[in-house]
Amino acid sequence: MKILIINGPNLNLLGTREPETYGDKSFENYFSQLQFKFKNTSLSYFQSNIEGELIDKLHECDHEFDGVVLNAAAYTHTSIGLGDALKAIKTPVVEVHISNTHAREDFRKKSFLSANAKGVIFGFGLASYDLAIESFLIEKQ
Amino acid sequence: MKILIINGPNLNLLGTREPETYGDKSFENYFSQLQFKFKNTSLSYFQSNIEGELIDKLHECDHEFDGVVLNAAAYTHTSIGLGDALKAIKTPVVEVHISNTHAREDFRKKSFLSANAKGVIFGFGLASYDLAIESFLIEKQ
Amino acid sequence: MKILIINGPNLNLLGTREPETYGDKSFENYFSQLQFKFKNTSLSYFQSNIEGELIDKLHECDHEFDGVVLNAAAYTHTSIGLGDALKAIKTPVVEVHISNTHAREDFRKKSFLSANAKGVIFGFGLASYDLAIESFLIEKQ
Amino acid sequence: MKILIINGPNLNLLGTREPETYGDKSFENYFSQLQFKFKNTSLSYFQSNIEGELIDKLHECDHEFDGVVLNAAAYTHTSIGLGDALKAIKTPVVEVHISNTHAREDFRKKSFLSANAKGVIFGFGLASYDLAIESFLIEKQ
Amino acid sequence: MKILIINGPNLNLLGTREPETYGDKSFENYFSQLQFKFKNTSLSYFQSNIEGELIDKLHECDHEFDGVVLNAAAYTHTSIGLGDALKAIKTPVVEVHISNTHAREDFRKKSFLSANAKGVIFGFGLASYDLAIESFLIEKQ
Amino acid sequence: MKILIINGPNLNLLGTREPETYGDKSFENYFSQLQFKFKNTSLSYFQSNIEGELIDKLHECDHEFDGVVLNAAAYTHTSIGLGDALKAIKTPVVEVHISNTHAREDFRKKSFLSANAKGVIFGFGLASYDLAIESFLIEKQ
Amino acid sequence: MKILIINGPNLNLLGTREPETYGDKSFENYFSQLQFKFKNTSLSYFQSNIEGELIDKLHECDHEFDGVVLNAAAYTHTSIGLGDALKAIKTPVVEVHISNTHAREDFRKKSFLSANAKGVIFGFGLASYDLAIESFLIEKQ
Amino acid sequence: MKILIINGPNLNLLGTREPETYGDKSFENYFSQLQFKFKNTSLSYFQSNIEGELIDKLHECDHEFDGVVLNAAAYTHTSIGLGDALKAIKTPVVEVHISNTHAREDFRKKSFLSANAKGVIFGFGLASYDLAIESFLIEKQ
Amino acid sequence: MKILIINGPNLNLLGTREPETYGDKSFENYFSQLQFKFKNTSLSYFQSNIEGELIDKLHECDHEFDGVVLNAAAYTHTSIGLGDALKAIKTPVVEVHISNTHAREDFRKKSFLSANAKGVIFGFGLASYDLAIESFLIEKQ
Amino acid sequence: MKILIINGPNLNLLGTREPETYGDKSFENYFSQLQFKFKNTSLSYFQSNIEGELIDKLHECDHEFDGVVLNAAAYTHTSIGLGDALKAIKTPVVEVHISNTHAREDFRKKSFLSANAKGVIFGFGLASYDLAIESFLIEKQ
Amino acid sequence: MKILIINGPNLNLLGTREPETYGDKSFENYFSQLQFKFKNTSLSYFQSNIEGELIDKLHECDHEFDGVVLNAAAYTHTSIGLGDALKAIKTPVVEVHISNTHAREDFRKKSFLSANAKGVIFGFGLASYDLAIESFLIEKQ
Amino acid sequence: MKILIINGPNLNLLGTREPETYGDKSFENYFSQLQFKFKNTSLSYFQSNIEGELIDKLHECDHEFDGVVLNAAAYTHTSIGLGDALKAIKTPVVEVHISNTHAREDFRKKSFLSANAKGVIFGFGLASYDLAIESFLIEKQ
Repeated sequence: MKILIINGPNLNLLGTREPETYGDKSFENYFSQLQFKFKNTSLSYFQSNIEGELIDKLHECDHEFDGVVLNAAAYTHTSIGLGDALKAIKTPVVEVHISNTHAREDFRKKSFLSANAKGVIFGFGLASYDLAIESFLIEKQ
Repeated sequence: MKILIINGPNLNLLGTREPETYGDKSFENYFSQLQFKFKNTSLSYFQSNIEGELIDKLHECDHEFDGVVLNAAAYTHTSIGLGDALKAIKTPVVEVHISNTHAREDFRKKSFLSANAKGVIFGFGLASYDLAIESFLIEKQ
Repeated sequence: MKILIINGPNLNLLGTREPETYGDKSFENYFSQLQFKFKNTSLSYFQSNIEGELIDKLHECDHEFDGVVLNAAAYTHTSIGLGDALKAIKTPVVEVHISNTHAREDFRKKSFLSANAKGVIFGFGLASYDLAIESFLIEKQ
Repeated sequence: MKILIINGPNLNLLGTREPETYGDKSFENYFSQLQFKFKNTSLSYFQSNIEGELIDKLHECDHEFDGVVLNAAAYTHTSIGLGDALKAIKTPVVEVHISNTHAREDFRKKSFLSANAKGVIFGFGLASYDLAIESFLIEKQ
Repeated sequence: MKILIINGPNLNLLGTREPETYGDKSFENYFSQLQFKFKNTSLSYFQSNIEGELIDKLHECDHEFDGVVLNAAAYTHTSIGLGDALKAIKTPVVEVHISNTHAREDFRKKSFLSANAKGVIFGFGLASYDLAIESFLIEKQ
Repeated sequence: MKILIINGPNLNLLGTREPETYGDKSFENYFSQLQFKFKNTSLSYFQSNIEGELIDKLHECDHEFDGVVLNAAAYTHTSIGLGDALKAIKTPVVEVHISNTHAREDFRKKSFLSANAKGVIFGFGLASYDLAIESFLIEKQ
Repeated sequence: MKILIINGPNLNLLGTREPETYGDKSFENYFSQLQFKFKNTSLSYFQSNIEGELIDKLHECDHEFDGVVLNAAAYTHTSIGLGDALKAIKTPVVEVHISNTHAREDFRKKSFLSANAKGVIFGFGLASYDLAIESFLIEKQ
Repeated sequence: MKILIINGPNLNLLGTREPETYGDKSFENYFSQLQFKFKNTSLSYFQSNIEGELIDKLHECDHEFDGVVLNAAAYTHTSIGLGDALKAIKTPVVEVHISNTHAREDFRKKSFLSANAKGVIFGFGLASYDLAIESFLIEKQ
Repeated sequence: MKILIINGPNLNLLGTREPETYGDKSFENYFSQLQFKFKNTSLSYFQSNIEGELIDKLHECDHEFDGVVLNAAAYTHTSIGLGDALKAIKTPVVEVHISNTHAREDFRKKSFLSANAKGVIFGFGLASYDLAIESFLIEKQ
Repeated sequence: MKILIINGPNLNLLGTREPETYGDKSFENYFSQLQFKFKNTSLSYFQSNIEGELIDKLHECDHEFDGVVLNAAAYTHTSIGLGDALKAIKTPVVEVHISNTHAREDFRKKSFLSANAKGVIFGFGLASYDLAIESFLIEKQ
Repeated sequence: MKILIINGPNLNLLGTREPETYGDKSFENYFSQLQFKFKNTSLSYFQSNIEGELIDKLHECDHEFDGVVLNAAAYTHTSIGLGDALKAIKTPVVEVHISNTHAREDFRKKSFLSANAKGVIFGFGLASYDLAIESFLIEKQ
Repeated sequence: MKILIINGPNLNLLGTREPETYGDKSFENYFSQLQFKFKNTSLSYFQSNIEGELIDKLHECDHEFDGVVLNAAAYTHTSIGLGDALKAIKTPVVEVHISNTHAREDFRKKSFLSANAKGVIFGFGLASYDLAIESFLIEKQ
């Protein structure tokens, strides 16, 4: 099974940005742990701060991946374009967030992605990614 | 590890109610599968259609369970009382939903629970419960 | 034909509560009149102030009644759970109100039940129940 | 007893317009059935697509009719003028709708008539008219 | 000076409709008084319950009248078409209301006419018309 | 091909009303140009300031015209009845506006017609009508 | 008859402030004209930029004046205190505005005074004051 | 004088729940203090997490108590049913809250009870109950 | 203990203004009763209709009074400045209202003071002041 | 005449994405048809999923093109930046949409472009582009 | 160059009020520093807690000052009267705030002054005043 | 001291775009003036129309610059991503705008940046940049 993890804006700063909200581990670091844990799954990783590049990447998925784990960060709450992309492609996409977005500012409660996502997982810290990958494996069983 | 699954209003009808949204498997049936899958975890189950009984049950958790998986169904969107209960107890609670609540009526996008939950998982059908239980086990590792 | 009348919160006070709005006849009193008037119909009656008990009662209807006349009173305007119950069961439910809910406070204009009801009747005083029962008999003809 | 049925905009198309919502029977056709059913009641019928003509007709009622059954269709949701007319005349008016207006677009949930109507009946298909006529006869008894 | 008074929906009932709000004098009766009082002014009067006929009448004014006194009643609050007509013609129009529209329902606080009116006068009972006519005469001086 | 152009309230003033917004050409004048330009198309024209008459006219279209070009002007923003008529008839209707309605007052951004129209064209001055007629001819090719 | 004219904030600048909106005549100047015109009426004048002083002045009116003409300017739209004062005193108060407040910013459409005023007159320039005084004289007749 | 104190959802946790907001004293403990302080008043106490049971209890009051002190906690902000109960019974009810509900989440600023309460007291910690009892005694003097 | 009672706009009219809402006793009269009742407490009284003078008075309190009882009347609902003053000073302030502000106009439900007040008491008529003074004495015990 | 067609996010998927909404023809394919149809017009085409690249492209237009046909897709509803670009350049821009955006989600009814566009055309499928090109040619005549 | 600094409500407490938000330096103290720093500029200072006195002061500026630095504090968010004063006078006014008003309560994000101010500066602590004075000097160069 | 000026979308057109709002000087031109004026400060400049590139640039600042002057133009009002970037980095950022954003469209009053900015300056034309640079130098003193 081939799964792509896509991270959106500011997540390249993970480990340095607001550690009380996002933890102090860089995502690259964590990605190695994920690869070790899910040995039988082929995991890839992409990050961009540019909304359109995230859309581009999603478009490329249909023939390359069985599932996408998407943390669109700030774009979650404003990007109709990403929501349209989720609807346009056939690969299932799981929406994740590291923090509990409902315990923060009101504008983080709105998501243009959720309605077109396979499912949504948030608030578990980096473990949100574990659970998202797990969600594809449960299906496989 | 001891985990309690709490189901709210109308979920006793699972398997018969709107199968296109909720599937055709009864929860009791599914609960047996969960017990089989998570052999090393002690799973309990409680269901009520009465908001106050769900609050009562949550109050009892602090000394009996290590975690709660809560699908408060319709009360999710209206019950400040359940939200207060989550904040009042010490046992961590994971909020789950079977369906993708963001792909349905607008009033199902609001949750009075999420801000006080350990994390939120929805849209994976009954597998949402699997992932919620999994979320407690990841922590344990 | 078997029809169940369900009354929600505070309707047990009928006859004593705000007689200028709800009249001075107790519902038990009125129920006898209804039974006399609709001799060929089997009428039952249930009242509770507890939202979850109203949901429980609706769940029991599918094999016992051909129709339900539901005056959910205050819960009409706040209970997503009752609305879900109406959608979950197969027995048709007619929503009734004694007073003209649109001539009172704004919050009484909203109903979580109507969209899932067979039909809605309000403003005719206790005669709203007569008309609701009548609505099932018209169908029968 | 003399009752006037008033139908508003687009209801002249009944039987041809959106049959899945409004049925395939023309109102004229149905009106004959009503006359047959309520032999002891004098029934009249008026239809117009012009808001002001509906107001004109309502003004004429006070000395001619004992009750009005009004389906103002689209004007229900926008016409303060019709609402004022209901308040201005002495003849009681029952508001009816064929479809369940609460199960359709949001703008159909608002009514400028209800607060000034004797009562409201909707969602029963054409039987809504039967029940409205019935509501005047119950009073008579 | 030639002035046209235009009255909108339900104002033909003046004197019979809700006398506690609108008084018990018919407008025809009052119009005679106005003609007597303003002997040097040529006063005309038009009433219709049909929004489009009110628009038609306003269109005819440009070559016939020096000013219009318009009580559009219920259409005041909903008719963009009347507002457009006021903007489209050159004859100045004074908006009047008999009752204090701000002391009634909220929906009567909004006017689609005011922004395009020469001025607005309301709350003085029938004397609102006196003042509106006066407003044209002051200009003349 | 037979096409009917329907113009709503105040458009009879075209050429005299607010020439900076609507131009200084009367519609009759422009209609002759359209007939000359679209020689192979049978063009008809109807105007009324009365909402209900516009509805009446739309009802007549089904057997007489292949398409309707509708500029409902002010009624666009308030008439649920016209929107219902568009849905009720089978003849396709193209919604047009002369001015750019989105560059004016906020209340002109809302349309009760668009959702039931075949398509929408606005902001091109009188050329909006040309394009609407063209849209029916493209289909024909 | 004794009438007090009260002007609120910034109206002391009349004649210098935004002459395109308010004209170039000072109010003192205009007040002399009013005294000349209404010779048989005793006119007084008060101006303050302080909300509380306007309230104080209104309180003093009950035994001294037969009527008040109040232009509360900016306080019209925000002062619940002035609205309460109007309700608290017995002297009738007519609300006036020089400009057409409905043709300006949205926040000028709201008035906390109107509901408690005897009547409202606006948009006639300084002539609004003439008409307000006139409104008291009509009553007298 | 006989006074009933009714506590709503989660208040059974008082002393353990969020002590920084609600203090660390259990209500039973505090109730003894109240009984000692108000020796000449007969105080009773009831707590439930179930909305309908709170309604039931209020219904029973009319013949048993002279006053009710009600802390409906979370139900304050959502329960139309409790508000209706307050209106339906004759016993005066004082609404109290321990914390300053206006200094917390926005949804705690709304109360469905206040309009039907004798008075409202909040923000004084447990002393809110003292003052509520006091309010009945002042009346008695 | 030294306590200052501050009354805001229009409360100087107490006893004459809307007696059905505020009673017919002047505050000075009532203040004597309070002084008699709370003999061991030093009570002072200040009233102004000017928002800024109320702010000035609050600023002076820190070294002179142990507590303030503030009925800011209309300013309660609009004055951010008074709210800021409450936050800026160290003396605790109890917000009171004579009438039940939640049973009146919607704009009286909002308070800019409550969040910064020690506590809030309203609806008990003049007894609200008694209870507010009492609230300081309870603390003292 | 030189015209540039600019397509925004996800429109590169045309022909594969949601064919029931957008049809099954790729835009490249359709573009050839347009070039064939409008032989005397020089047509160019640009697509990007990146908002800023669409802005860049619009900036380049002033010296190269006589008109732009812009389908900004999802960015239509959220991009103030694109709206500003339309205002900043001199080349006229026609806004087009393939689908009827008013018959879809509410958030697609809002456009930040329309107010600054020469005109707007939507709902005609790919023919919307034909009509937009046509709109430039009409002008030329 | 002559510049007047005007401070609004509660700013007289600077140095004692909420030092974590506003710092612990009194404004008088700071004003001396400003005078020392801007030796070639004539600086004056005025403070009042009364809205109307701030308006009075602004009116006096036209012939006395070349610029005004205005920190209207709480009145910024509610005073239409101050906004009108800014528009009415000719002296340019720079709006300043010590704290970052956008990082505080929502009601502090709204300003009735900004639209009529020469410019706005906030969030720099007392240095906001330095920058405002600087803004007048830049112009002078 | 090293300061970076970042300009967002459409600001590359400065000098040609809407000169009545933004002036007719190109930013490059102005930047030279700034470098000349602030000789002792190292100034850099970056512009992009792509939201994500602006975020990228902000991320690079922490080790290279002592302060950032950010004019995010249109993205100010919609970009949660930029707001998050400001919060994520340690370099202080001053938000500037050339025009008075509060005197333009309503959607320009909202900023997702301000709450996380060191301070905000707008409305001074290009001098807003001077003042922003100055704000860093004041701190240094």
